[in-house]
Amino acid sequence: MNEEPKTAKLGVNAETLFKEFREVQLSEFFRKNRQYLGYVGKQKSLTTVVHELVTNSLDACEEAGILPDIKVIIKELGNEHYKVIVEDNGPGVPEKHIDRVFGQLLTGTKFHRNIQLRGQQGLGVSGAVLFSQITTGKPTRIRSGTGNGKVVDAQILIDIKTNSPKIVEKEVYNDMWRGTIVESEFKGVKYSRGAKGPFEYMRWTAAANPHAQIFFKDNTSEILFERVVNQVPPRPKEIKPHPEGLEPHDLLDIAHSSKARQVSSMLMSELSRVSADKVREIQEVVNTDIIQNTLKELLPEQKISEIIKKSNLKSQAIKEDVERAVREVLVGEDQQKISDIIRVLNGAIFDMRMSPKRLEWEQAEQLVNAFKKVKFMAPPTSGLIPIGKKVIEKALTNLLAPDFVEAISRSPSVYRGGIPFLVEVAIAYGGNSGRETSEGGRKVELMRFANRAPLLFDAGGCVTTLAMESIDWKRYHIIDLESAPITIFINLISTHVPYTSAGKQAIAKEDEIYDEIRFALMQIARTLQKFLAGKRRVQEEKAKKRMFEKYVPETATALSKLTGMDANEIQKSLEKIVMSRFSELFSKEELQENTQEEGAAYEEIPEPDEEAEE
Amino acid sequence: MNEEPKTAKLGVNAETLFKEFREVQLSEFFRKNRQYLGYVGKQKSLTTVVHELVTNSLDACEEAGILPDIKVIIKELGNEHYKVIVEDNGPGVPEKHIDRVFGQLLTGTKFHRNIQLRGQQGLGVSGAVLFSQITTGKPTRIRSGTGNGKVVDAQILIDIKTNSPKIVEKEVYNDMWRGTIVESEFKGVKYSRGAKGPFEYMRWTAAANPHAQIFFKDNTSEILFERVVNQVPPRPKEIKPHPEGLEPHDLLDIAHSSKARQVSSMLMSELSRVSADKVREIQEVVNTDIIQNTLKELLPEQKISEIIKKSNLKSQAIKEDVERAVREVLVGEDQQKISDIIRVLNGAIFDMRMSPKRLEWEQAEQLVNAFKKVKFMAPPTSGLIPIGKKVIEKALTNLLAPDFVEAISRSPSVYRGGIPFLVEVAIAYGGNSGRETSEGGRKVELMRFANRAPLLFDAGGCVTTLAMESIDWKRYHIIDLESAPITIFINLISTHVPYTSAGKQAIAKEDEIYDEIRFALMQIARTLQKFLAGKRRVQEEKAKKRMFEKYVPETATALSKLTGMDANEIQKSLEKIVMSRFSELFSKEELQENTQEEGAAYEEIPEPDEEAEE
Repeated sequence: MNEEPKTAKLGVNAETLFKEFREVQLSEFFRKNRQYLGYVGKQKSLTTVVHELVTNSLDACEEAGILPDIKVIIKELGNEHYKVIVEDNGPGVPEKHIDRVFGQLLTGTKFHRNIQLRGQQGLGVSGAVLFSQITTGKPTRIRSGTGNGKVVDAQILIDIKTNSPKIVEKEVYNDMWRGTIVESEFKGVKYSRGAKGPFEYMRWTAAANPHAQIFFKDNTSEILFERVVNQVPPRPKEIKPHPEGLEPHDLLDIAHSSKARQVSSMLMSELSRVSADKVREIQEVVNTDIIQNTLKELLPEQKISEIIKKSNLKSQAIKEDVERAVREVLVGEDQQKISDIIRVLNGAIFDMRMSPKRLEWEQAEQLVNAFKKVKFMAPPTSGLIPIGKKVIEKALTNLLAPDFVEAISRSPSVYRGGIPFLVEVAIAYGGNSGRETSEGGRKVELMRFANRAPLLFDAGGCVTTLAMESIDWKRYHIIDLESAPITIFINLISTHVPYTSAGKQAIAKEDEIYDEIRFALMQIARTLQKFLAGKRRVQEEKAKKRMFEKYVPETATALSKLTGMDANEIQKSLEKIVMSRFSELFSKEELQENTQEEGAAYEEIPEPDEEAEE
Repeated sequence: MNEEPKTAKLGVNAETLFKEFREVQLSEFFRKNRQYLGYVGKQKSLTTVVHELVTNSLDACEEAGILPDIKVIIKELGNEHYKVIVEDNGPGVPEKHIDRVFGQLLTGTKFHRNIQLRGQQGLGVSGAVLFSQITTGKPTRIRSGTGNGKVVDAQILIDIKTNSPKIVEKEVYNDMWRGTIVESEFKGVKYSRGAKGPFEYMRWTAAANPHAQIFFKDNTSEILFERVVNQVPPRPKEIKPHPEGLEPHDLLDIAHSSKARQVSSMLMSELSRVSADKVREIQEVVNTDIIQNTLKELLPEQKISEIIKKSNLKSQAIKEDVERAVREVLVGEDQQKISDIIRVLNGAIFDMRMSPKRLEWEQAEQLVNAFKKVKFMAPPTSGLIPIGKKVIEKALTNLLAPDFVEAISRSPSVYRGGIPFLVEVAIAYGGNSGRETSEGGRKVELMRFANRAPLLFDAGGCVTTLAMESIDWKRYHIIDLESAPITIFINLISTHVPYTSAGKQAIAKEDEIYDEIRFALMQIARTLQKFLAGKRRVQEEKAKKRMFEKYVPETATALSKLTGMDANEIQKSLEKIVMSRFSELFSKEELQENTQEEGAAYEEIPEPDEEAEE
C-alpha cells in the first residue's frame, strides 16, 4: 500500500515502541494537567478551591431542604501557603461513601441525573483534594455527620497511581451534629480581596443565594452575609429528557437500561412530553420513510403513495394494517410479487411494540429523526427553580443599597431543541452598585451566575457578556455604560449549563439563551431609563426651584419699586406661585427623604451657572 | 457546630441522596462533554478528527525513523455525514495493543515520557473513535501491519460504560505490509475547504513537515504535497527532568520509583544536570536551613553560625562532620547539653545517602527549595528536534513560491525554570504568501504550530498571536501588516507544550516563549525590511532607466541640432552613460530574471507620469 520495499528494516519497530504502552489513570492525567480543572494561576486556583467546596455545600443543602449556613475560613500559614476550611450544615456524607466522594475523581451523585444543580461532573471536591495533595503532600481532613448520632473524622488522600481513596486516619465518634467540614492546605496559591478572589466569590454567592447565611473570614477580617430570605428553595427535580434534545446514542442508552417492555411505553415513561398520541405519530413518521425506502426499487412511486395513504401507520397492529393496504392496492397483481413485498415490508417496518432492549443504532436514528418532525410540547420546566424577582431584588438591595433595582425572572424556554433553561436578570443603579475604580469612581459590574454559582473568570466569551455588550445602551439614555454605577446581574438556570470548557467559567453562546438575556436586559433598561429620566427631572426642578427661591426676594423688591406695591405682599404671592408650580416636587421630596440621603451616586445635574445667567 | 436543633428532621437525608452515588467512567464523561476533546462545532469537529489521526501517524513514523507517507481521504456520504480515512506507512500497532490503543481512553505510550511529540495525553485516537461511535453508532475500522508478516484488520468500539475496547470483528492475515489505516464515519460534521478545515490543516502540516509526503483527497479533488526533504528528522529523545522544573510531588514520584539506592545517586541518574558536585551543593543548602531551624531555640544565633561555618556540609559523612563542629564550637559547655544537641541534629540532618524509597514529602520539599537556590546548567536540549532554518525555507518556498523567505531556528531555552523549548519563526513575502481575501486581495496569515502540529483554532489568546501583535511592524516599513501578502510561520518545539486547555489549540503566554518569538520576529523583520527597501530601489532605478532610454533618442536629436554633431554618435555616448550608471542594475536583473516573472506581487512603483513631467 506504499512504495517502500515491503521488508524495510526499521531502526525501531512497533514492539519496541509499545514497550512504553500504559494505561493512564484519571488522577495522573489531572495531576499533570491541573489547569483543566481550573487550577491555573495562584489566585484563580484558590478561588477554584472555594468554589468547588461551597457549591457542593449549597447543592447538598438544597437537595436536603436545609437552609444553608456556610462558613469559609482562609488562613495564611506562610508564603503562598494557605489553609481553607469550609463548613456547612448540610445533610452530611454517609460513612461508607466518604472515602470515594473525597478520594476518587469522577464519582458523585449528579452526573447521571438531569437535574439543576451547581455541580455536574463529580470532579469538583476530589479535584480540590488532589490539588491540595500535589501542592502540600498532605491529606484533606473531613468531618461529616448525617445527624444520626455518628460523626466521621477522616484524613483522605488520593492514590494517584490508581485513582482510589487512601484513608490516612479515621475516627468515628458519637454526636448528633449534622454537616460537613472540609479542611485542606494549599501551596503556591495567593489570597487577595480583589475582583477574582475568594471574598468576591462569596459576596457574589450571597447575592445569588440570599437563603444562605455565609460567614467569611480571612487573616485580617471577617464578615457575615446575613440570610435575607428564610425559605429553602424548592428541591430541584429531575427532568426527563425531552425527545428534541436527544441523539441516537442517548436514546439507545435509555432504551437498553429501561425496564419498559415495549419501545412505545419506554418512550412514554423515560422521556418527557411523549404521550400515546405522540407515539403513534412517531410510528407513522418513521414508517412512512421505511415503506418509501423499502419499496422504492419494487413498485412505481404512485403505488407506494397509495399504500402509504391506505395504511393506518398509527395502528397498533401496524404490520397487519400495512399488509391489508398492500393487498388492496396491488389487487390483481402477481401473488408471488405481493407476498414478496409483504415479506420485505414485515422485516422492515418499525413496530413500537418491540422490546427496547433489542433497539439498534439504525432504529434509534430513525426515531431521533422522527422526533425532529413531530411537534412536542416544550419540556416541563417544573424542575427549574429560579431565584425569583422579589428575592433577587431583596438580595441586591441588601448587598448594594442601590437607588434603583429591578429584576426579571423570565419564563422557562429551551435551547438546542430540548434543554430547558431560564434566565434571571437584574440591574441595580447607584449606592454601592458597580465596582470601585482605582481613582475612586465607579464602573459597571457584571455579576454572572450559572445555577446561582458565580462565574468570575473568562468573562470575554461568555454569553452573558456578549448579550450585555450587544445592547445599545445609549438608546436607554445610559450614555457611558462602562463608567456607570451599575451592577448587572445575570443568572442562568438549567438542568445542563452549556459551559465552554471544563473550567466551567463561561457559558457558550446558545442563540436561545443569548436572546432571552437580551430581552430581559432591554426590558429592565427601559424601566431604568424612566427612573433616570424622573431623577433628572426632579434634579432639574429642584435646581429651578432653588433659583426661584433665591430670586423671589430680589424680584419682589424690584417689582415693589416699579409698582409701588408692598414688597412683602409681592414676595408672598410670588412664593405661592413657586410653591404651586413645584407642589408635586415638594411632596415627592418628602416621601423620598430617606433615599435622598444616599443619592450621592446619582448623576449630578449641575446647578445653573449664576454668572452665565446674568 | 451550628445553631439548628441537633436532631432536626430532614425531608431527605444523606442516605437517600447517596442512593445515586456512582463512579463515572472517563468514556461516559467525555461522551457527555465531547467539547473538551475539541469536538465542538461541525467544522472544528471534523478537523479535530483529522488532527488526531494525522499527528498520531507522524509521531509514530518519527519515532520509528520512517519517512512518512500519509494519505487523508474525506468522503461525503450524505448530509453532514462523512467517512475519514487516514493511512500511514508507520511502524504499525502490535496486535495485542490494537484494541486498547483505539478502544480505551487515556492509554498510550507518550504520557509518561518527557519527550517532544505531537501527542501527549493518550486521548487523541480513542477520542476520535468515541466521537465516531456516538454520532454514527458504528465501529472504527483499523488495519495495521508491523511489517512482520501479519496484518490485523479489526473493527473497534468503546464500551462506554466501562471504558474498555469492544472488538466487533477481527481478522488477521499474512502480509508483509507495514503501516496503519484508520477508517471511521462521522455524522453532524461539515467539510469545507475554508480556513479551518481539514484541507487547510493538511496544507499547514505539509509546511511544517516537509519530510512527509501527503496525499489529500475530498469529494471534488485531490492534491499531493510532495516530500521536500528526504531525511527523517532525528528520533526525539526523552529528556530527564531538570531540577528547576520539579515540584515536590514530581520528585517524590521519581524517588519512589527509582532503582537508585541513595538519594544522591537517584538525583544524578533520574534528573538532568545534577552532578556529584551539585549533589554536595544541594546537601549544603538543605542542611544549612535544617541546622538553623533545629538549633534556633537551643543556641544563640552566633553559635549556630559558627557551627555551620565549621561544618563541612558537603561532606559525605555529614553527620560525623557536624558532630565534630558542634563539639569544637561548644567546647567547655555542659556535656549533657552537647549530646542533646548532637542527638537532635542527627535526627534532623538530611543525609544524601538515605534510600529514595524512604523519601518523605517534607524532605522532597526541602530538596525542591534547595534546587531553586543552586545554579544548574540549562537543561540539555539534544532531545529537541527543530525543523531547521533551511528546511523551513525550502518548505515555504515549495508551498508559497514567495519572493522573499527567511527562517530562524533559535537556540534552545527553558521556560518555567526547567522545561526546554525552542522556537522557529519564518516570514514569507509575495507569491502565494498570505491568505486570499474575499475581494481577491491578500492579507497576512499566521501559521501556528506546536511540535510541527498545526494550531488552527483559538488564535486569540495564543502566545504566537500575542507576540506577532506586539511587534511594531511600521518600524520595519511594513505599514499595514493586516493587508500585506505575508505568511508568518511560528513553530514551538518542546517536551511539554503549555497548552491553555485540553483542546490543545493555543499556547499559554509563558514569558520566555513570548520573548523568544518576539526576538526571532524582529530579527527576520529587519531582513525583510532590507529586502523590501532593495526591491523598492530596484523598481525605482528601473523606472528611471526606462525613462532615460525613452528620452535618449530625442535628447540626441535635440543635441545634434544644437551642436551639429552626428545624432547617432551622440546617442551612442548617451547610451554608454546610461549603461554605466545602471550597470549594477543590469547585471542584477539578468540574474533575477526568473524570479522577476513571478514578481507581480511586489509593491508596484508607478511609472513617472509623463504628462506631469512635461
